[in-house]
Amino acid sequence: MNSNSSYLSGLSRRVLLSGLAVAPAVIGPLRSTPASAQGGDPLPSWNDGQAKQVIMAFVQATTTQGSPVFVPPEARIATFDQDGTLWVEHPMYSQVVYCLERVPAVVAKKPELKNVEPFKTVLSGNREAMAKLSLRDLEKILAVTLTGMPVEEFNAEAKKWTQSAKDSRWKRPYTDLTYLPMQEVLRYLRANGYKTYIVTGGGQDFVRVYSDQVYGIPPEQVVGTAGGTKYGYDKDGKPFLTKEPKILLNDNNAGKPEGIHLMIGRRPYAAFGNSTGDRQMLEYTWAGDGARLAMLVLHDDDKREYAYGPAQGLPDTKVGAFTQALYDEAKKKGWTVISMKSDWKRIFAFE
Amino acid sequence: MNSNSSYLSGLSRRVLLSGLAVAPAVIGPLRSTPASAQGGDPLPSWNDGQAKQVIMAFVQATTTQGSPVFVPPEARIATFDQDGTLWVEHPMYSQVVYCLERVPAVVAKKPELKNVEPFKTVLSGNREAMAKLSLRDLEKILAVTLTGMPVEEFNAEAKKWTQSAKDSRWKRPYTDLTYLPMQEVLRYLRANGYKTYIVTGGGQDFVRVYSDQVYGIPPEQVVGTAGGTKYGYDKDGKPFLTKEPKILLNDNNAGKPEGIHLMIGRRPYAAFGNSTGDRQMLEYTWAGDGARLAMLVLHDDDKREYAYGPAQGLPDTKVGAFTQALYDEAKKKGWTVISMKSDWKRIFAFE
Repeated sequence: MNSNSSYLSGLSRRVLLSGLAVAPAVIGPLRSTPASAQGGDPLPSWNDGQAKQVIMAFVQATTTQGSPVFVPPEARIATFDQDGTLWVEHPMYSQVVYCLERVPAVVAKKPELKNVEPFKTVLSGNREAMAKLSLRDLEKILAVTLTGMPVEEFNAEAKKWTQSAKDSRWKRPYTDLTYLPMQEVLRYLRANGYKTYIVTGGGQDFVRVYSDQVYGIPPEQVVGTAGGTKYGYDKDGKPFLTKEPKILLNDNNAGKPEGIHLMIGRRPYAAFGNSTGDRQMLEYTWAGDGARLAMLVLHDDDKREYAYGPAQGLPDTKVGAFTQALYDEAKKKGWTVISMKSDWKRIFAFE
Repeated sequence: MNSNSSYLSGLSRRVLLSGLAVAPAVIGPLRSTPASAQGGDPLPSWNDGQAKQVIMAFVQATTTQGSPVFVPPEARIATFDQDGTLWVEHPMYSQVVYCLERVPAVVAKKPELKNVEPFKTVLSGNREAMAKLSLRDLEKILAVTLTGMPVEEFNAEAKKWTQSAKDSRWKRPYTDLTYLPMQEVLRYLRANGYKTYIVTGGGQDFVRVYSDQVYGIPPEQVVGTAGGTKYGYDKDGKPFLTKEPKILLNDNNAGKPEGIHLMIGRRPYAAFGNSTGDRQMLEYTWAGDGARLAMLVLHDDDKREYAYGPAQGLPDTKVGAFTQALYDEAKKKGWTVISMKSDWKRIFAFE
């Protein structure tokens, strides 16, 4: 990879010098025993390299008592984008697949939609025509498949789908397609007192359905694009919430720091993303005092997963674009770009 | 002082935990021991009576392995209204006092407001005229004192105020005016694996400033009336969030279950309130399966605190009204009404 040395210098300024200057002296009386000290490499699916070193140096520096950049346990917040950062997002976000696959069931209940676009095209099964649907069309599909029903009905449907639907390339449930190296980072951070959050452009309610099972992250630690709900009563007077077609939080771009403030109320110390939609979350995290960790996954592995940018001459994409401008900002600021190809020894747990 | 010995057991545990933070070996064995198992009464400021029994029976039933209504630790969510439930709300919500007291500083920065109502009236200091301000006037004052500034500037101002402002009756910081019996319930629930949340009609950002210090509840476990923020950059390119005069969540009445869904994503097992603004939160909690706890504090103690209803013939109020209809619903459904006068042995820690 090209000139990694320039962000090595940024790294040593931010983390290594401040943290490691005291680390040797205080490694003995560690307050809580980090996973790494329990024997064994906490990140075995990572190749030894700069990205792995940055993560481990950050954790050491911020959790070692006496370190000048020590972070008290209650302030240890780490945020992770989901699609493309924690699991596969190509060829299409799994939630969009869910919405498209829900259309027949919705039309069965609302037959008046049968001959109306964009539902007619989706029902036709013509993939070429579906690929041409506009953003406005997609919004109509999302609105009708994600709203208008009781919260508990939605949860049950989404849960059923995530347990049965399979990705067409790996023939496995989408929930299997999480990156093993990132699962290790989640566990490593948690073992060191960090509270891990998902901060996703995807639907908050959708991701909450499986976040605990897939990532060990409870629903209340999922921040996502969120719609309003409406409180009401059924015919027996039992209260329930209905999902409304009204967006309260568009958790993308500037919406990510805004969502973090709304839902968490503190600035993260570590943030992980993979696309331009994560830029502001990383900026906001990085702008805090002390040691901060800002990392971006670059999908440069067309053999084991997918290759897309358009940064670094990789193919362009509409799903999870990592622009050259983002790459340049990362290098300039000292954020770390994770190369899937060279930093990750393994991609999935099942392979 | 009355029966401090049992209360000391809870206190000493708290002091020990903070004091021994540097001695890791001692924290482990203490951390997982529930207060009730330490041999003392976990609710020493409560008189023996139905309310105390209901709380203890609920905790026993939902946390004892093998119980038919056992709740797994990750699902143990308890929500508490703040004003009038956890601390004093009369004669006026402390946040409203904050907003009124901020007016001179705001006008100093925006002199054009000096001769404009309702600011002119507030600046006059005429309490009789201030008491006649309309809801619309109050909203103008809240908007100008709670929004339009960077989040961190607001946090610093609110923190400074809560550390210095005093209630006129007890001549003590508002943060001292929390109900000792409710502090015991918070600790008792947490010691038994419950995650405690504040769900307040007050400002989410305002309450988050002191929630950890006053209640041991971290900012991310405060759900309140929440405005939007706007992400931007200062002249040096450093990002920051500005508080916007746009309400995302009005966390009162039906807004409470809606806010719980948005911010927590699960139905609570226990909910505590004191006014009609809490009715839907209690209904929503109560409508879940298994054992649920729904409790309402009735302010019927005009000697030690205040007496207001209008339930049960108590004086009517505009601040935290507990109507007869709510009282009747509670009785009909089996919710528990806590009588401040007869259920609470002590009201405050300082008395």
